[in-house]
Amino acid sequence: MKVWLIGAYGIVSTTAMVGGKALEKNIIDKVGLVSELPFFSGIDKYAPLSFEFGGHDVRPMDNAYAASLDHWEQNRHFERHILEEVRDYLEGVKAAKGTALNCGSGIEELGKIETLEQEGLTLREIADRLTEDMKKFADDETVVINTASTEPVPKYSEEYHGSIDGFERMLDDDAKEYATASMLYAYAALKLGLPYGNFTPSVGSNIPALKQLAIEKKVPHAGNDGKTGETLVKTTLAPMFLYRNLEVIGWMSYNILGDLDGKVLSHRDNKESKVVSKDKVLEKVLGYSPYSITEINYFPSLVDNKTAFDFIHFKGFLGTKMKFYFIWDAIDAIVAAPLILDIARFLLVAKKKGLYGVIKELSFFFKSPMETDIVNTHQQFEMLKEWFSGLL
Amino acid sequence: MKVWLIGAYGIVSTTAMVGGKALEKNIIDKVGLVSELPFFSGIDKYAPLSFEFGGHDVRPMDNAYAASLDHWEQNRHFERHILEEVRDYLEGVKAAKGTALNCGSGIEELGKIETLEQEGLTLREIADRLTEDMKKFADDETVVINTASTEPVPKYSEEYHGSIDGFERMLDDDAKEYATASMLYAYAALKLGLPYGNFTPSVGSNIPALKQLAIEKKVPHAGNDGKTGETLVKTTLAPMFLYRNLEVIGWMSYNILGDLDGKVLSHRDNKESKVVSKDKVLEKVLGYSPYSITEINYFPSLVDNKTAFDFIHFKGFLGTKMKFYFIWDAIDAIVAAPLILDIARFLLVAKKKGLYGVIKELSFFFKSPMETDIVNTHQQFEMLKEWFSGLL
Amino acid sequence: MKVWLIGAYGIVSTTAMVGGKALEKNIIDKVGLVSELPFFSGIDKYAPLSFEFGGHDVRPMDNAYAASLDHWEQNRHFERHILEEVRDYLEGVKAAKGTALNCGSGIEELGKIETLEQEGLTLREIADRLTEDMKKFADDETVVINTASTEPVPKYSEEYHGSIDGFERMLDDDAKEYATASMLYAYAALKLGLPYGNFTPSVGSNIPALKQLAIEKKVPHAGNDGKTGETLVKTTLAPMFLYRNLEVIGWMSYNILGDLDGKVLSHRDNKESKVVSKDKVLEKVLGYSPYSITEINYFPSLVDNKTAFDFIHFKGFLGTKMKFYFIWDAIDAIVAAPLILDIARFLLVAKKKGLYGVIKELSFFFKSPMETDIVNTHQQFEMLKEWFSGLL
Amino acid sequence: MKVWLIGAYGIVSTTAMVGGKALEKNIIDKVGLVSELPFFSGIDKYAPLSFEFGGHDVRPMDNAYAASLDHWEQNRHFERHILEEVRDYLEGVKAAKGTALNCGSGIEELGKIETLEQEGLTLREIADRLTEDMKKFADDETVVINTASTEPVPKYSEEYHGSIDGFERMLDDDAKEYATASMLYAYAALKLGLPYGNFTPSVGSNIPALKQLAIEKKVPHAGNDGKTGETLVKTTLAPMFLYRNLEVIGWMSYNILGDLDGKVLSHRDNKESKVVSKDKVLEKVLGYSPYSITEINYFPSLVDNKTAFDFIHFKGFLGTKMKFYFIWDAIDAIVAAPLILDIARFLLVAKKKGLYGVIKELSFFFKSPMETDIVNTHQQFEMLKEWFSGLL
Repeated sequence: MKVWLIGAYGIVSTTAMVGGKALEKNIIDKVGLVSELPFFSGIDKYAPLSFEFGGHDVRPMDNAYAASLDHWEQNRHFERHILEEVRDYLEGVKAAKGTALNCGSGIEELGKIETLEQEGLTLREIADRLTEDMKKFADDETVVINTASTEPVPKYSEEYHGSIDGFERMLDDDAKEYATASMLYAYAALKLGLPYGNFTPSVGSNIPALKQLAIEKKVPHAGNDGKTGETLVKTTLAPMFLYRNLEVIGWMSYNILGDLDGKVLSHRDNKESKVVSKDKVLEKVLGYSPYSITEINYFPSLVDNKTAFDFIHFKGFLGTKMKFYFIWDAIDAIVAAPLILDIARFLLVAKKKGLYGVIKELSFFFKSPMETDIVNTHQQFEMLKEWFSGLL
Repeated sequence: MKVWLIGAYGIVSTTAMVGGKALEKNIIDKVGLVSELPFFSGIDKYAPLSFEFGGHDVRPMDNAYAASLDHWEQNRHFERHILEEVRDYLEGVKAAKGTALNCGSGIEELGKIETLEQEGLTLREIADRLTEDMKKFADDETVVINTASTEPVPKYSEEYHGSIDGFERMLDDDAKEYATASMLYAYAALKLGLPYGNFTPSVGSNIPALKQLAIEKKVPHAGNDGKTGETLVKTTLAPMFLYRNLEVIGWMSYNILGDLDGKVLSHRDNKESKVVSKDKVLEKVLGYSPYSITEINYFPSLVDNKTAFDFIHFKGFLGTKMKFYFIWDAIDAIVAAPLILDIARFLLVAKKKGLYGVIKELSFFFKSPMETDIVNTHQQFEMLKEWFSGLL
Repeated sequence: MKVWLIGAYGIVSTTAMVGGKALEKNIIDKVGLVSELPFFSGIDKYAPLSFEFGGHDVRPMDNAYAASLDHWEQNRHFERHILEEVRDYLEGVKAAKGTALNCGSGIEELGKIETLEQEGLTLREIADRLTEDMKKFADDETVVINTASTEPVPKYSEEYHGSIDGFERMLDDDAKEYATASMLYAYAALKLGLPYGNFTPSVGSNIPALKQLAIEKKVPHAGNDGKTGETLVKTTLAPMFLYRNLEVIGWMSYNILGDLDGKVLSHRDNKESKVVSKDKVLEKVLGYSPYSITEINYFPSLVDNKTAFDFIHFKGFLGTKMKFYFIWDAIDAIVAAPLILDIARFLLVAKKKGLYGVIKELSFFFKSPMETDIVNTHQQFEMLKEWFSGLL
Repeated sequence: MKVWLIGAYGIVSTTAMVGGKALEKNIIDKVGLVSELPFFSGIDKYAPLSFEFGGHDVRPMDNAYAASLDHWEQNRHFERHILEEVRDYLEGVKAAKGTALNCGSGIEELGKIETLEQEGLTLREIADRLTEDMKKFADDETVVINTASTEPVPKYSEEYHGSIDGFERMLDDDAKEYATASMLYAYAALKLGLPYGNFTPSVGSNIPALKQLAIEKKVPHAGNDGKTGETLVKTTLAPMFLYRNLEVIGWMSYNILGDLDGKVLSHRDNKESKVVSKDKVLEKVLGYSPYSITEINYFPSLVDNKTAFDFIHFKGFLGTKMKFYFIWDAIDAIVAAPLILDIARFLLVAKKKGLYGVIKELSFFFKSPMETDIVNTHQQFEMLKEWFSGLL
């Protein structure tokens, strides 16, 4: 199958490419790939473990190998020889020039960027260019995944975002203050009938206009915000307190990370969408809102080694207070990258089985799943298993 | 309802008594009680939140108030005024003299003990005395729960443990080396038709003879070993690694505790049953056995503030190793005590609904549930909910 | 000896009073008291373990017992019976009405307050009232200690803060925007010849005017900001990295606390002086400024159980990065209160030995010691020992 | 200078070699080297940063490069290119065949070994061979350091260990049950007048016979047991509790590690000397023995990433209990290797300055320093600084 990656030169995308090709070559095992669990056997028939990659990016780099090497130099996040074994392929992957429209001040951290809007294009022209790029690459088995840096929360416009007609009008009006990059990419994908997965907290396809488009074009889509670290643990662990009727009286979540991701999130406007996305899960699991702190801070020496410190204060029988602490010390891209491949595969299965619109059964992969409040990791996993076994 | 507690003067039993009576008096809220979650509404009709307590013990103390106060002085595990408000009731609860047969060297840590075997009774006479004591107390709504200190693993005898006839013969033969205290208590309860729950890793009703007795007498029973601390967290968290196909390459579980429990477990023979019970859960959840360390050590100053340190080393995509740490800092009796009331209530519901034999749907409460390999906390909770909603 | 406490009804002050009287009555042992270490034997001759307490506060409470009980109800920070055994004494301790001038928005968290400025007094009149109050209480063996909530950093005025003449002019000019409560208390104490210790990060005696006054009046003083928690550990541990030539590449310090202190510090203006005080120590110990995060956040359920999470990222031989984590889980008032008594005793010894001005050898007790850059806990302790043994 | 390493193919020795040569080539900076701190400026004149390496080992490997590569494949403990840049040199370093006499059952974990005793040599012949090997390599600026795996505690014999005459008699008597490998190496070094440092808890030069030899030969020596991980932190942190008069009521130290070191220590006889060495430090720092647990366990996936979990339970003012936790997550060889170079340099300075016998001022580097009870890291560092500045 083919995967078109928005933010193709980012660490998550390049790690997914390295892993995808290394899997094909049988030089790594399948650890980390949800879709390869025995529960999902049979997926190969619809979406085999064989990938072609393309994508958009706004950073002017030579190719995906150069981008991968750059990330590797910072992070040593896997064995170097793996990169070299897929080097030839990655050198052939060159991202098309993308857009960073309304991506916030954090985007400055990416260094020099080259965007379609810098060429003076109108919204309509940008959308057309994105569409053309995808079209050239895509076939019937292509999925588009957004892994680009987090955008600020856009201001909602019922007029432009409320319906696909409005959205088209926004493009024609060149109403740039209402559009963000992630919307435009999602629009292009859905318009072309390509399944779309949003691995970021950016708005992506999560507006009425694009949901309508997905239904009209009969395309499946899913999001938002890959559940890869502290939130994964939180939504796995919080149910324990619920089941045992232990009252959570405070939950501190303190995240530090370096890397571009950390730099971008250190910009208040970009961080906002992330923190909101993380914050709501406790209420959804527990049924009430304990006092909670969720912070993300930049810590350069960690690079992509995203570390989370959580402290849970809880009350038990007879009113006695007790404590729980955890430390999550992981490499974000390593946890995230296989999910890119998983989401792409599941979306392709969905498409082949004739499903369209939001596939809420993929909530297992997301912090803020669209159209469902189920964030309990266990329930999500059960839902995914049932959905899949019902499909085949 | 009535609850007969084996080990009535222990910290778990006395905390359950204090809490049970405090709930009746409405001076504490229902935090910690699983059976009071909305999922189990309707349980009140069968097993209201109103309790009478009795039990056996081998320590010569005046009454349950004296025992409670002793634990309180060591632990301050709840607000003192609660104890005083139920003092009158507790002063009326006096444990009958019990047995400590083959309870291992750890029993020495309890200090001076008084047992039926010290009176020179035969096995049959001991069993008869235990039966009489329970009979005097019990009514149709009585459940027996074992909370006594952990016994060593007894050596299995097909002749004496393999059938109820064999068990009766063991009593008649006075074959003391084959009987342990927990078996005798379980025998007495089941013989009288009283539902029996085993909150300890001791053998209790978990031999063919007693399982047969439970079926013949049409009594429900459940066990073993209350899931209250580190194992609760482990069986909640390990599924996350399974779901995400992250390979656990090592899991360290290091437990420290003071208190009698800690002292008893510092005896190698007594510890053995505990460690085995804790150790098997990872394999059951993950489907493979990662390298694991499970240790329990005595740490006097913590008293009942059982603390667990866990370190999980796991491998993700592209073979990269990552780390997770947690610290569980809780008061064991506070986590355990409400479960005593929960188990008693659910067993009473089971009895009233005509169920008998091992109630494996109560596995949610146990580290080593009988007759099921489901130890994933979430699956257990779903199973409990479904079972309950099917019953009513 | 006598101790006059600014913020007499706060948790640190009342805990110091409870402990001070309990020591006299021999119902607690001397754990936590630095001045009772064998290194300081002989101190009794100058400053025996026998205390009378008085102080200022802005909260209208009945007496120090009522205030203590209030803190105890929130925190259970020691055994209740101790409080009762010193109840009679504490009921006799009634704080004089104080000032909260320019104490920032955080002061609102204290609830209803009554201050001298509310009476419409001028600066001079306020200073006079504070002086009178102290004068009525004090004798030759009286020390004044500031434990009141943290004030915002005042703006420095060379005219008014640069000399004692300027300071007197500020009082006469009623230039309220330049004065803060802590300055006024410090002025009153020094003017009266009473040794003054500043246990808070507020400015206190740390302006040229008051340093000059201390020298003119030949009074010893010391501060600032009691080193009680995370900074204590940090200044003990950071030297290890220095000694071993391990490069600290990042140090995260994340503090959470409830209580009034936490509420006050959740006000940005009040927090500022605290964070600055904590932040500088790494540079002073290591000789360079690693990337560091120092945050303090409000976490109500912890009350005074101030908890700190620190993560140290360091680089070793051959450039390899390594990690260190610590969690400090202590009761702030319990760590702080004995130091109040220690500082009072050491200041009294200083006075009796004819020392005056800033006693920088007391830096061991402070986060931001005046007139020295030595913050390494070990060096401070050595300095304290040497100073003391040179005195006697 | 020249360094002769006992256990030359081990991870600590090879990492020291890699680092030593990389320093010479200026491809790494001096992080981790104590002797390069400004406090020790001037050391270059006596012991420049320029090294030749040789040594003994019992594993038949081609050369130090092969051994380094093997460790690197397991650990990735530094950037691979550094190893390649010193490859030529390391390929020339071939260890002489050593002895593993009475090295315990743990030695089996090393795989196939080749020893002098397998050749059927007598004790005297073994000692002679070791001496010859060193002699061929050594010059006036050569130091011998022991980094071999931990031996069991030998049984002390006053006859053979009590004097150098006795020791010589032991060699002549071929009394193999009284000699261990580390003694023989130390004997050879001291006899040749080569300064000797014992980085392991094995007995080494720490018997009267060899101390006497060192004095007779006027050679400086130091040991035992490099202070590299959890003990380093413990002896840095425990003083804080002492200084503040906080009573340590329990200290748990739980260490896990993989690697050969972990395997060897999983043998009860080999572990014994290690645990004893670690255990005594608390009493030496605090002046009393708190309840303490010190455990070391094998955890294969960590390889050399030795991880320690410590929990400190302490009592403060008014008897209140509080808690402190730390996690040390470091690469043991990376912390240890530079100290090998440091010890070698300081011993060479000592020799050049005419010092001999036990150099107790080097206690800073050791867990169980010979002839001093000072284990407080801060005092040790002060002692080292003073000693050094007194020398030059």
